[in-house]
Amino acid sequence: MRFGFLMYPGYEELDLIGPWEIATMWQTYANGPECVTIAETSAEMRCAKGLITRAGLTYADAGTLDYLLVPGGFSAFEEMKNPATLEFVRQCAREGKAVLSVCSGTFILLAAGLLEDVRATTNWKVLARLREAGVEVIEERYVHDGRIWSSGGVSAGIDMTLAFVADQAGPEAAWTVQYQSEYLPDGRLYGSVSTWDGAPAYARRPG
Amino acid sequence: MRFGFLMYPGYEELDLIGPWEIATMWQTYANGPECVTIAETSAEMRCAKGLITRAGLTYADAGTLDYLLVPGGFSAFEEMKNPATLEFVRQCAREGKAVLSVCSGTFILLAAGLLEDVRATTNWKVLARLREAGVEVIEERYVHDGRIWSSGGVSAGIDMTLAFVADQAGPEAAWTVQYQSEYLPDGRLYGSVSTWDGAPAYARRPG
Repeated sequence: MRFGFLMYPGYEELDLIGPWEIATMWQTYANGPECVTIAETSAEMRCAKGLITRAGLTYADAGTLDYLLVPGGFSAFEEMKNPATLEFVRQCAREGKAVLSVCSGTFILLAAGLLEDVRATTNWKVLARLREAGVEVIEERYVHDGRIWSSGGVSAGIDMTLAFVADQAGPEAAWTVQYQSEYLPDGRLYGSVSTWDGAPAYARRPG
Repeated sequence: MRFGFLMYPGYEELDLIGPWEIATMWQTYANGPECVTIAETSAEMRCAKGLITRAGLTYADAGTLDYLLVPGGFSAFEEMKNPATLEFVRQCAREGKAVLSVCSGTFILLAAGLLEDVRATTNWKVLARLREAGVEVIEERYVHDGRIWSSGGVSAGIDMTLAFVADQAGPEAAWTVQYQSEYLPDGRLYGSVSTWDGAPAYARRPG
């Protein structure tokens, strides 16, 4: 089994590396799939906030993937016009078991034609934009609809990927990943959601 | 103001990139310090789980830093023997306002001589080892003692860095970072802490 993580110029760091850490803990401690990073080319690329990374594989040599995760970032709105990326994502959807998106990565799934009659979510800043594109938007931290998983912005991909592990491999595997990554957030809020214009429904729900 | 993130071969991905995302959100949305990645050399390096990254600056050209974050990973126990790294960390401690460690990165601070009479924490797997080294270990998700901040394993660095932003810039800045990164974890536990041998005290506390 193989789990691919898509990189493109300007992807948001934590969108990819949060889920990557969860998935590689699954690989290491609970017999999860082999995790690989993939981009159109093997060139170095700069992330949204300046981190420098390079993918291990290209579209041409990625081979068959069981799962693909697509991160977001402001540059997702450019990347969603890249025919090579859209064809690669479509191929993964055809051949694999699940496609996951984080943040504005959902718009790449949209452009690839994967969101027809699929409920999904995205970063809170672009929920309206996704709705206007005709998608049934569900304002949860993450949404699972058939073979498509999508999450809110940036850090929400961590929660989604952990839920994905539980779905694919059972709660014991997810628990192993959770304590290996010490993912027991303190849950502290540093402000009031009432001061957050455009907060998604899940954040506005009493805790 | 400048915030440095130390890279070395085999560092654990999320140890660095969780805090990096929080700090770069601080930079972008709340007038936080400029964030930079730093390593001994400008060579590409492979992380603990295989991610390929490269630091933007080397020890020689890092300049003065106000803050330094040191990630962990199994390779931290090798890196703590690297004199160039220890001297760089010491220099940052002398010239800067705070040094932060995540996970086994705390052992690099220890080797640099920064933990004398300082309470600290680390990854749950090596709490006893840190205690045996003479450090007063506090089993919290993160510990702040003077100019030294330390956290538990992997994902705990995110909570620490958010608390650090609140400490340095106030809760409004931390709240801005929190909603920009949509860091409102769902808090779900996939198993029982009673099945986690060696769980740190904070995890064993009733929620």
